[in-house]
Amino acid sequence: MKKNEKIYGIHPVIEFIKVSPDRIINIWIQEELKSESILSISNMAESIGLSIQHSKKETLDKITNKQNHQGIVLEVIQSGDINTNSLEKILEKNEKNNPIYLILDSIQDPHNLGACIRTAVASGVSAIIIPKNRAVGINETVRKVACGAVENIDIITVVNLVRAIKKIKEMGVWVIGASTDSKQSIYDFDLKIPIAIVIGGEDKGIRTQVRKECDYLGSLPITKNIESLNLSVAAGIVLFEAVRQRKYK
Amino acid sequence: MKKNEKIYGIHPVIEFIKVSPDRIINIWIQEELKSESILSISNMAESIGLSIQHSKKETLDKITNKQNHQGIVLEVIQSGDINTNSLEKILEKNEKNNPIYLILDSIQDPHNLGACIRTAVASGVSAIIIPKNRAVGINETVRKVACGAVENIDIITVVNLVRAIKKIKEMGVWVIGASTDSKQSIYDFDLKIPIAIVIGGEDKGIRTQVRKECDYLGSLPITKNIESLNLSVAAGIVLFEAVRQRKYK
Repeated sequence: MKKNEKIYGIHPVIEFIKVSPDRIINIWIQEELKSESILSISNMAESIGLSIQHSKKETLDKITNKQNHQGIVLEVIQSGDINTNSLEKILEKNEKNNPIYLILDSIQDPHNLGACIRTAVASGVSAIIIPKNRAVGINETVRKVACGAVENIDIITVVNLVRAIKKIKEMGVWVIGASTDSKQSIYDFDLKIPIAIVIGGEDKGIRTQVRKECDYLGSLPITKNIESLNLSVAAGIVLFEAVRQRKYK
Repeated sequence: MKKNEKIYGIHPVIEFIKVSPDRIINIWIQEELKSESILSISNMAESIGLSIQHSKKETLDKITNKQNHQGIVLEVIQSGDINTNSLEKILEKNEKNNPIYLILDSIQDPHNLGACIRTAVASGVSAIIIPKNRAVGINETVRKVACGAVENIDIITVVNLVRAIKKIKEMGVWVIGASTDSKQSIYDFDLKIPIAIVIGGEDKGIRTQVRKECDYLGSLPITKNIESLNLSVAAGIVLFEAVRQRKYK
Protein backbone atom coordinates (compact mmCIF):
# COMPACT_ATOMS: atom_id res chain seq x y z
CA MET A 1 0.00 0.00 0.00
CA LYS A 2 1.38 3.38 -0.99
CA LYS A 3 1.92 5.98 1.70
CA ASN A 4 -0.54 8.85 1.74
CA GLU A 5 0.83 12.27 0.80
CA LYS A 6 0.85 15.34 3.02
CA ILE A 7 -0.09 18.77 1.68
CA TYR A 8 0.70 21.79 3.91
CA GLY A 9 0.85 25.56 3.89
CA ILE A 10 -2.03 27.99 3.35
CA HIS A 11 -2.00 28.29 -0.44
CA PRO A 12 -1.27 24.65 -1.37
CA VAL A 13 -4.03 23.53 1.01
CA ILE A 14 -6.61 25.98 -0.35
CA GLU A 15 -5.81 24.95 -3.93
CA PHE A 16 -5.97 21.27 -3.06
CA ILE A 17 -9.37 21.56 -1.36
CA LYS A 18 -10.70 23.39 -4.41
CA VAL A 19 -9.33 20.98 -7.02
CA SER A 20 -9.30 17.51 -5.41
CA PRO A 21 -11.60 17.40 -2.38
CA ASP A 22 -12.28 13.72 -3.04
CA ARG A 23 -8.69 12.80 -2.23
CA ILE A 24 -8.60 14.37 1.28
CA ILE A 25 -8.66 11.96 4.21
CA ASN A 26 -7.60 14.13 7.14
CA ILE A 27 -7.09 17.77 8.02
CA TRP A 28 -5.10 19.14 10.96
CA ILE A 29 -5.18 22.77 12.06
CA GLN A 30 -2.84 24.16 14.68
CA GLU A 31 -4.64 25.02 17.91
CA GLU A 32 -5.34 28.68 18.62
CA LEU A 33 -4.54 29.88 15.11
CA LYS A 34 -7.36 32.27 14.15
CA SER A 35 -6.12 34.07 11.02
CA GLU A 36 -8.55 34.86 8.25
CA SER A 37 -6.91 32.28 5.96
CA ILE A 38 -7.19 29.56 8.60
CA LEU A 39 -10.87 30.39 9.26
CA SER A 40 -11.52 30.32 5.52
CA ILE A 41 -9.88 26.89 5.23
CA SER A 42 -11.92 25.67 8.23
CA ASN A 43 -15.12 26.71 6.51
CA MET A 44 -14.12 25.09 3.22
CA ALA A 45 -13.20 21.85 5.02
CA GLU A 46 -16.46 21.72 6.93
CA SER A 47 -18.49 22.41 3.81
CA ILE A 48 -17.08 19.28 2.19
CA GLY A 49 -17.65 17.18 5.32
CA LEU A 50 -14.15 16.94 6.75
CA SER A 51 -13.73 16.69 10.52
CA ILE A 52 -10.99 19.09 11.50
CA GLN A 53 -8.43 17.89 14.02
CA HIS A 54 -7.22 20.81 16.12
CA SER A 55 -3.71 19.82 17.25
CA LYS A 56 -0.58 21.22 18.88
CA LYS A 57 2.18 22.75 16.73
CA GLU A 58 4.44 19.81 17.73
CA THR A 59 1.96 17.34 16.20
CA LEU A 60 1.94 19.19 12.88
CA ASP A 61 5.75 19.43 13.00
CA LYS A 62 5.95 15.68 13.42
CA ILE A 63 3.43 14.92 10.66
CA THR A 64 5.35 17.11 8.18
CA ASN A 65 8.89 16.29 9.31
CA LYS A 66 9.25 19.87 10.51
CA GLN A 67 8.39 21.53 7.20
CA ASN A 68 6.97 25.05 7.13
CA HIS A 69 3.31 23.96 7.44
CA GLN A 70 1.90 27.39 8.49
CA GLY A 71 -0.43 25.58 10.92
CA ILE A 72 -2.35 23.59 8.33
CA VAL A 73 -1.83 20.04 6.99
CA LEU A 74 -3.86 17.74 4.75
CA GLU A 75 -3.43 13.99 4.42
CA VAL A 76 -4.44 12.96 0.91
CA ILE A 77 -4.45 9.70 -0.98
CA GLN A 78 -2.42 9.25 -4.16
CA SER A 79 -4.39 10.24 -7.21
CA GLY A 80 -3.92 6.73 -8.68
CA ASP A 81 -5.74 5.21 -5.71
CA ILE A 82 -9.10 6.63 -6.67
CA ASN A 83 -11.00 6.89 -9.88
CA THR A 84 -12.59 10.25 -9.29
CA ASN A 85 -14.81 9.76 -12.31
CA SER A 86 -16.41 6.52 -11.25
CA LEU A 87 -19.23 8.06 -9.19
CA GLU A 88 -20.03 10.54 -11.97
CA LYS A 89 -20.08 7.74 -14.54
CA ILE A 90 -22.45 5.66 -12.45
CA LEU A 91 -24.72 8.64 -11.81
CA GLU A 92 -24.84 9.43 -15.53
CA LYS A 93 -25.47 5.78 -16.44
CA ASN A 94 -28.50 5.62 -14.11
CA GLU A 95 -29.78 9.16 -14.58
CA LYS A 96 -32.73 8.18 -16.77
CA ASN A 97 -33.65 4.96 -14.93
CA ASN A 98 -35.32 6.51 -11.88
CA PRO A 99 -32.47 5.26 -9.68
CA ILE A 100 -32.41 4.11 -6.08
CA TYR A 101 -28.96 4.44 -4.53
CA LEU A 102 -27.93 2.92 -1.22
CA ILE A 103 -25.39 4.90 0.81
CA LEU A 104 -23.86 2.97 3.71
CA ASP A 105 -22.14 5.27 6.21
CA SER A 106 -19.45 3.65 8.39
CA ILE A 107 -20.64 0.05 8.61
CA GLN A 108 -18.14 -1.96 10.65
CA ASP A 109 -19.53 -5.51 10.60
CA PRO A 110 -18.88 -7.46 7.37
CA HIS A 111 -22.05 -9.53 8.01
CA ASN A 112 -24.13 -6.36 7.95
CA LEU A 113 -22.42 -5.05 4.81
CA GLY A 114 -22.88 -8.41 3.06
CA ALA A 115 -26.56 -8.59 4.06
CA CYS A 116 -27.12 -5.01 2.81
CA ILE A 117 -25.53 -5.83 -0.56
CA ARG A 118 -27.68 -8.97 -0.94
CA THR A 119 -30.82 -6.96 -0.14
CA ALA A 120 -29.78 -4.11 -2.45
CA VAL A 121 -29.45 -6.50 -5.39
CA ALA A 122 -32.79 -8.15 -4.52
CA SER A 123 -34.57 -4.79 -4.46
CA GLY A 124 -32.97 -3.51 -7.68
CA VAL A 125 -30.75 -0.77 -6.24
CA SER A 126 -28.74 1.00 -8.99
CA ALA A 127 -25.48 1.34 -7.04
CA ILE A 128 -24.11 1.24 -3.50
CA ILE A 129 -21.83 3.97 -2.20
CA ILE A 130 -19.52 3.23 0.74
CA PRO A 131 -16.76 5.29 2.36
CA LYS A 132 -13.13 4.25 1.91
CA ASN A 133 -12.12 4.92 5.51
CA ARG A 134 -13.46 3.98 8.95
CA ALA A 135 -15.73 1.31 7.43
CA VAL A 136 -15.41 -2.33 6.44
CA GLY A 137 -14.59 -2.89 2.78
CA ILE A 138 -15.52 -5.71 0.42
CA ASN A 139 -13.70 -8.68 1.99
CA GLU A 140 -14.23 -12.44 1.87
CA THR A 141 -16.81 -12.46 4.68
CA VAL A 142 -18.81 -9.75 2.92
CA ARG A 143 -18.73 -11.72 -0.34
CA LYS A 144 -19.86 -14.90 1.40
CA VAL A 145 -22.74 -13.29 3.32
CA ALA A 146 -23.85 -11.44 0.17
CA CYS A 147 -24.38 -14.83 -1.59
CA GLY A 148 -22.80 -13.76 -4.88
CA ALA A 149 -24.52 -10.38 -4.93
CA VAL A 150 -21.24 -8.40 -4.87
CA GLU A 151 -20.65 -9.21 -8.55
CA ASN A 152 -24.15 -8.09 -9.54
CA ILE A 153 -24.13 -4.47 -8.46
CA ASP A 154 -21.96 -1.36 -8.82
CA ILE A 155 -20.24 -0.62 -5.52
CA ILE A 156 -18.42 2.71 -5.42
CA THR A 157 -15.90 3.46 -2.72
CA VAL A 158 -15.50 7.18 -2.06
CA VAL A 159 -13.00 9.04 0.10
CA ASN A 160 -15.43 11.74 1.07
CA LEU A 161 -19.04 10.67 1.52
CA VAL A 162 -20.31 14.24 1.99
CA ARG A 163 -18.83 15.27 -1.36
CA ALA A 164 -20.32 12.16 -2.96
CA ILE A 165 -23.78 13.04 -1.59
CA LYS A 166 -23.45 16.59 -2.93
CA LYS A 167 -22.74 15.15 -6.38
CA ILE A 168 -25.67 12.76 -6.10
CA LYS A 169 -27.99 15.65 -5.19
CA GLU A 170 -26.69 17.69 -8.14
CA MET A 171 -28.08 14.92 -10.38
CA GLY A 172 -31.62 15.55 -9.09
CA VAL A 173 -31.61 12.65 -6.63
CA TRP A 174 -33.31 13.13 -3.23
CA VAL A 175 -31.28 11.91 -0.28
CA ILE A 176 -33.21 10.28 2.57
CA GLY A 177 -31.48 9.20 5.77
CA ALA A 178 -32.88 6.42 7.97
CA SER A 179 -32.84 7.76 11.51
CA THR A 180 -34.59 6.34 14.57
CA ASP A 181 -35.13 9.79 16.09
CA SER A 182 -36.86 11.47 13.18
CA LYS A 183 -40.49 12.44 13.76
CA GLN A 184 -41.27 11.82 10.12
CA SER A 185 -41.75 8.23 9.12
CA ILE A 186 -40.18 6.72 6.04
CA TYR A 187 -43.76 5.95 4.98
CA ASP A 188 -44.49 9.69 4.76
CA PHE A 189 -42.16 10.11 1.78
CA ASP A 190 -42.67 9.66 -1.92
CA LEU A 191 -40.04 7.08 -2.82
CA LYS A 192 -41.06 6.86 -6.48
CA ILE A 193 -38.74 9.71 -7.46
CA PRO A 194 -34.95 9.27 -7.86
CA ILE A 195 -33.67 8.63 -4.33
CA ALA A 196 -30.62 7.71 -2.32
CA ILE A 197 -31.23 5.94 1.00
CA VAL A 198 -28.60 6.55 3.69
CA ILE A 199 -28.11 3.88 6.37
CA GLY A 200 -25.78 4.66 9.28
CA GLY A 201 -23.25 2.49 11.08
CA GLU A 202 -23.88 0.06 13.94
CA ASP A 203 -23.04 2.29 16.87
CA LYS A 204 -23.78 5.88 16.10
CA GLY A 205 -26.02 5.80 13.04
CA ILE A 206 -25.44 8.42 10.36
CA ARG A 207 -22.53 10.78 11.11
CA THR A 208 -23.39 14.42 11.73
CA GLN A 209 -21.84 15.83 8.55
CA VAL A 210 -23.54 13.18 6.42
CA ARG A 211 -26.85 13.71 8.21
CA LYS A 212 -26.70 17.43 7.40
CA GLU A 213 -26.56 16.61 3.70
CA CYS A 214 -29.76 14.53 3.80
CA ASP A 215 -32.81 16.19 2.25
CA TYR A 216 -35.05 14.24 4.64
CA LEU A 217 -34.67 12.00 7.66
CA GLY A 218 -37.23 9.25 8.14
CA SER A 219 -37.73 6.72 10.93
CA LEU A 220 -39.34 3.28 11.04
CA PRO A 221 -42.21 3.00 13.53
CA ILE A 222 -40.66 0.58 16.03
CA THR A 223 -42.15 -0.22 19.43
CA LYS A 224 -40.69 1.08 22.66
CA ASN A 225 -39.58 -2.42 23.68
CA ILE A 226 -36.38 -2.25 21.68
CA GLU A 227 -33.86 0.44 20.82
CA SER A 228 -33.36 -0.22 17.13
CA LEU A 229 -33.56 -2.67 14.26
CA ASN A 230 -30.55 -4.49 12.87
CA LEU A 231 -29.25 -2.14 10.17
CA SER A 232 -29.49 -4.67 7.34
CA VAL A 233 -33.12 -5.37 8.30
CA ALA A 234 -33.82 -1.62 8.39
CA ALA A 235 -32.19 -1.23 4.96
CA GLY A 236 -34.40 -4.04 3.62
CA ILE A 237 -37.58 -2.48 4.97
CA VAL A 238 -36.82 0.96 3.50
CA LEU A 239 -35.67 -0.38 0.11
CA PHE A 240 -38.71 -2.63 -0.28
CA GLU A 241 -41.02 0.22 0.71
CA ALA A 242 -39.56 2.02 -2.33
CA VAL A 243 -40.15 -1.13 -4.44
CA ARG A 244 -43.73 -1.33 -3.16
CA GLN A 245 -44.47 2.30 -3.95
CA ARG A 246 -43.00 1.95 -7.42
CA LYS A 247 -44.71 -1.35 -8.33
CA TYR A 248 -47.95 -1.51 -6.36
CA LYS A 249 -49.24 2.00 -5.76
CA MET B 1 -33.31 -35.02 29.74
CA LYS B 2 -36.07 -37.60 30.10
CA LYS B 3 -36.35 -40.35 27.48
CA ASN B 4 -39.28 -40.08 25.11
CA GLU B 5 -42.01 -42.70 25.43
CA LYS B 6 -43.04 -45.18 22.73
CA ILE B 7 -46.72 -45.92 22.03
CA TYR B 8 -47.49 -48.91 19.79
CA GLY B 9 -50.33 -51.14 18.62
CA ILE B 10 -53.36 -50.08 16.56
CA HIS B 11 -55.76 -49.00 19.31
CA PRO B 12 -53.33 -47.23 21.66
CA VAL B 13 -51.93 -45.30 18.69
CA ILE B 14 -55.36 -44.22 17.40
CA GLU B 15 -56.37 -43.07 20.88
CA PHE B 16 -53.13 -41.21 21.39
CA ILE B 17 -53.40 -39.36 18.08
CA LYS B 18 -56.96 -38.32 19.00
CA VAL B 19 -56.19 -37.16 22.53
CA SER B 20 -52.61 -35.81 22.51
CA PRO B 21 -51.49 -35.01 18.97
CA ASP B 22 -49.27 -32.23 20.34
CA ARG B 23 -47.03 -34.74 22.07
CA ILE B 24 -46.18 -36.82 18.98
CA ILE B 25 -42.67 -36.41 17.57
CA ASN B 26 -42.31 -39.40 15.24
CA ILE B 27 -44.45 -42.10 13.66
CA TRP B 28 -43.18 -45.36 12.13
CA ILE B 29 -45.35 -47.68 10.02
CA GLN B 30 -44.19 -51.11 8.89
CA GLU B 31 -43.55 -51.27 5.16
CA GLU B 32 -46.12 -53.00 3.00
CA LEU B 33 -48.82 -53.09 5.65
CA LYS B 34 -52.03 -51.97 3.97
CA SER B 35 -54.83 -52.85 6.39
CA GLU B 36 -57.77 -50.52 6.82
CA SER B 37 -56.62 -49.56 10.34
CA ILE B 38 -53.11 -48.72 9.15
CA LEU B 39 -54.48 -46.60 6.29
CA SER B 40 -56.76 -44.84 8.73
CA ILE B 41 -53.83 -44.06 11.04
CA SER B 42 -51.79 -42.84 8.05
CA ASN B 43 -54.54 -40.38 7.17
CA MET B 44 -54.87 -39.17 10.75
CA ALA B 45 -51.11 -38.69 11.02
CA GLU B 46 -50.88 -36.76 7.79
CA SER B 47 -53.82 -34.56 8.70
CA ILE B 48 -51.95 -33.34 11.79
CA GLY B 49 -48.75 -32.80 9.86
CA LEU B 50 -46.66 -35.82 10.84
CA SER B 51 -44.17 -37.24 8.35
CA ILE B 52 -44.63 -41.01 8.38
CA GLN B 53 -41.49 -43.11 8.35
CA HIS B 54 -42.16 -46.37 6.48
CA SER B 55 -39.68 -48.87 7.96
CA LYS B 56 -38.86 -52.59 8.04
CA LYS B 57 -40.41 -54.83 10.72
CA GLU B 58 -36.91 -55.24 12.24
CA THR B 59 -36.67 -51.49 12.82
CA LEU B 60 -40.00 -51.42 14.66
CA ASP B 61 -38.96 -54.51 16.66
CA LYS B 62 -35.80 -52.69 17.72
CA ILE B 63 -37.58 -49.44 18.62
CA THR B 64 -40.09 -51.29 20.82
CA ASN B 65 -37.74 -53.92 22.25
CA LYS B 66 -39.68 -56.60 20.35
CA GLN B 67 -43.10 -55.74 21.77
CA ASN B 68 -46.24 -56.59 19.82
CA HIS B 69 -46.35 -53.30 17.90
CA GLN B 70 -48.76 -54.47 15.13
CA GLY B 71 -46.71 -52.50 12.60
CA ILE B 72 -47.26 -49.04 14.14
CA VAL B 73 -45.18 -47.03 16.64
CA LEU B 74 -45.32 -43.46 17.92
CA GLU B 75 -42.52 -41.60 19.70
CA VAL B 76 -44.07 -39.10 22.11
CA ILE B 77 -42.67 -36.65 24.59
CA GLN B 78 -43.52 -36.91 28.29
CA SER B 79 -46.61 -34.94 29.12
CA GLY B 80 -44.64 -32.88 31.67
CA ASP B 81 -42.32 -31.65 28.93
CA ILE B 82 -44.96 -29.55 27.26
CA ASN B 83 -47.56 -27.15 28.45
CA THR B 84 -50.26 -27.94 25.93
CA ASN B 85 -52.28 -24.99 27.11
CA SER B 86 -49.68 -22.32 26.53
CA LEU B 87 -50.51 -21.70 22.88
CA GLU B 88 -54.24 -21.54 23.67
CA LYS B 89 -53.57 -19.10 26.50
CA ILE B 90 -51.51 -16.82 24.27
CA LEU B 91 -54.13 -16.96 21.53
CA GLU B 92 -56.88 -16.06 23.99
CA LYS B 93 -54.80 -13.25 25.50
CA ASN B 94 -54.30 -11.63 22.10
CA GLU B 95 -57.66 -12.45 20.55
CA LYS B 96 -59.07 -8.95 20.85
CA ASN B 97 -55.85 -7.06 20.01
CA ASN B 98 -55.82 -7.67 16.24
CA PRO B 99 -52.74 -9.86 16.63
CA ILE B 100 -49.78 -10.46 14.34
CA TYR B 101 -48.09 -13.79 15.03
CA LEU B 102 -44.73 -14.84 13.63
CA ILE B 103 -44.31 -18.54 12.90
CA LEU B 104 -40.72 -19.60 12.22
CA ASP B 105 -40.52 -23.01 10.57
CA SER B 106 -37.22 -24.90 10.99
CA ILE B 107 -34.72 -22.06 11.34
CA GLN B 108 -31.23 -23.53 11.88
CA ASP B 109 -28.99 -20.48 12.31
CA PRO B 110 -29.15 -18.81 15.75
CA HIS B 111 -28.19 -15.46 14.15
CA ASN B 112 -31.27 -15.62 11.96
CA LEU B 113 -33.53 -16.61 14.86
CA GLY B 114 -32.11 -13.81 17.03
CA ALA B 115 -32.52 -11.25 14.25
CA CYS B 116 -36.14 -12.37 13.69
CA ILE B 117 -36.94 -12.00 17.40
CA ARG B 118 -35.45 -8.51 17.49
CA THR B 119 -37.48 -7.48 14.44
CA ALA B 120 -40.64 -9.11 15.83
CA VAL B 121 -40.39 -7.04 19.03
CA ALA B 122 -39.68 -3.89 17.01
CA SER B 123 -42.76 -4.40 14.85
CA GLY B 124 -45.08 -5.26 17.75
CA VAL B 125 -45.65 -8.97 17.04
CA SER B 126 -47.94 -10.57 19.65
CA ALA B 127 -46.08 -13.89 19.93
CA ILE B 128 -43.56 -16.05 18.09
CA ILE B 129 -44.22 -19.75 17.49
CA ILE B 130 -41.26 -22.07 16.85
CA PRO B 131 -41.06 -25.86 16.52
CA LYS B 132 -39.43 -27.91 19.24
CA ASN B 133 -37.56 -30.24 16.90
CA ARG B 134 -35.29 -29.83 13.88
CA ALA B 135 -34.85 -26.12 14.60
CA VAL B 136 -32.52 -24.00 16.72
CA GLY B 137 -33.92 -23.09 20.14
CA ILE B 138 -33.38 -20.03 22.31
CA ASN B 139 -29.66 -20.31 23.13
CA GLU B 140 -27.03 -17.78 24.17
CA THR B 141 -26.20 -16.72 20.60
CA VAL B 142 -29.90 -16.12 19.90
CA ARG B 143 -30.21 -13.99 23.04
CA LYS B 144 -27.16 -11.95 22.13
CA VAL B 145 -28.19 -11.31 18.53
CA ALA B 146 -31.72 -10.42 19.67
CA CYS B 147 -30.30 -7.57 21.80
CA GLY B 148 -32.51 -8.25 24.82
CA ALA B 149 -35.65 -8.81 22.78
CA VAL B 150 -36.10 -12.43 23.93
CA GLU B 151 -37.41 -11.21 27.30
CA ASN B 152 -39.90 -8.83 25.68
CA ILE B 153 -42.05 -11.23 23.69
CA ASP B 154 -43.96 -14.48 24.16
CA ILE B 155 -42.11 -17.30 22.42
CA ILE B 156 -44.04 -20.57 22.27
CA THR B 157 -42.29 -23.81 21.43
CA VAL B 158 -44.64 -26.39 19.93
CA VAL B 159 -44.06 -30.05 19.12
CA ASN B 160 -46.30 -30.03 16.08
CA LEU B 161 -46.34 -26.85 14.06
CA VAL B 162 -49.18 -27.99 11.80
CA ARG B 163 -51.42 -28.59 14.82
CA ALA B 164 -50.44 -25.19 16.19
CA ILE B 165 -51.37 -23.51 12.91
CA LYS B 166 -54.74 -25.28 12.91
CA LYS B 167 -55.39 -23.88 16.40
CA ILE B 168 -54.31 -20.41 15.31
CA LYS B 169 -56.71 -20.55 12.35
CA GLU B 170 -59.54 -21.69 14.63
CA MET B 171 -59.14 -18.35 16.43
CA GLY B 172 -59.96 -16.45 13.23
CA VAL B 173 -56.37 -15.64 12.36
CA TRP B 174 -55.32 -15.75 8.68
CA VAL B 175 -52.08 -17.59 8.04
CA ILE B 176 -49.81 -16.16 5.34
CA GLY B 177 -46.63 -17.93 4.26
CA ALA B 178 -43.71 -16.05 2.73
CA SER B 179 -42.69 -18.00 -0.35
CA THR B 180 -40.41 -16.90 -3.18
CA ASP B 181 -42.32 -18.92 -5.77
CA SER B 182 -45.80 -17.56 -5.12
CA LYS B 183 -47.31 -15.53 -7.95
CA GLN B 184 -49.19 -13.39 -5.45
CA SER B 185 -47.17 -10.67 -3.79
CA ILE B 186 -47.26 -10.02 -0.07
CA TYR B 187 -48.40 -6.51 -1.05
CA ASP B 188 -51.58 -7.96 -2.55
CA PHE B 189 -52.89 -8.98 0.88
CA ASP B 190 -54.83 -7.13 3.52
CA LEU B 191 -52.55 -7.39 6.57
CA LYS B 192 -54.80 -5.26 8.79
CA ILE B 193 -56.80 -8.30 9.92
CA PRO B 194 -55.53 -10.81 12.52
CA ILE B 195 -52.62 -12.60 10.80
CA ALA B 196 -49.84 -15.08 11.33
CA ILE B 197 -46.79 -14.73 9.08
CA VAL B 198 -44.92 -17.97 8.35
CA ILE B 199 -41.21 -17.74 7.50
CA GLY B 200 -39.43 -20.93 6.39
CA GLY B 201 -35.96 -22.26 7.18
CA GLU B 202 -32.68 -21.38 5.46
CA ASP B 203 -32.44 -24.24 2.99
CA LYS B 204 -35.86 -25.41 1.95
CA GLY B 205 -38.23 -22.64 3.01
CA ILE B 206 -41.58 -23.62 4.51
CA ARG B 207 -42.05 -27.42 4.82
CA THR B 208 -44.76 -28.99 2.63
CA GLN B 209 -47.14 -29.89 5.46
CA VAL B 210 -46.86 -26.41 6.97
CA ARG B 211 -47.27 -24.78 3.56
CA LYS B 212 -50.51 -26.70 3.03
CA GLU B 213 -51.96 -25.11 6.16
CA CYS B 214 -51.30 -21.56 4.97
CA ASP B 215 -54.38 -19.64 3.84
CA TYR B 216 -52.23 -17.66 1.42
CA LEU B 217 -48.68 -17.69 0.11
CA GLY B 218 -47.10 -14.38 -0.81
CA SER B 219 -43.74 -13.51 -2.34
CA LEU B 220 -41.57 -10.42 -2.21
CA PRO B 221 -40.82 -8.89 -5.62
CA ILE B 222 -37.07 -9.55 -5.83
CA THR B 223 -34.98 -9.10 -8.98
CA LYS B 224 -33.67 -12.02 -11.00
CA ASN B 225 -30.10 -11.26 -10.00
CA ILE B 226 -30.38 -13.12 -6.70
CA GLU B 227 -32.14 -16.25 -5.52
CA SER B 228 -33.59 -15.04 -2.24
CA LEU B 229 -33.40 -12.58 0.61
CA ASN B 230 -31.88 -13.39 3.98
CA LEU B 231 -34.79 -14.78 5.99
CA SER B 232 -34.56 -12.26 8.81
CA VAL B 233 -34.61 -9.41 6.26
CA ALA B 234 -37.62 -11.01 4.55
CA ALA B 235 -39.37 -11.32 7.93
CA GLY B 236 -38.68 -7.64 8.61
CA ILE B 237 -40.07 -6.52 5.26
CA VAL B 238 -43.29 -8.52 5.67
CA LEU B 239 -43.84 -7.54 9.31
CA PHE B 240 -43.30 -3.85 8.62
CA GLU B 241 -45.62 -4.01 5.62
CA ALA B 242 -48.26 -5.11 8.14
CA VAL B 243 -47.25 -2.21 10.42
CA ARG B 244 -47.46 0.22 7.50
CA GLN B 245 -50.93 -0.99 6.48
CA ARG B 246 -52.18 -0.76 10.04
CA LYS B 247 -50.71 2.69 10.82
CA TYR B 248 -50.46 4.57 7.55
CA LYS B 249 -53.18 3.40 5.20
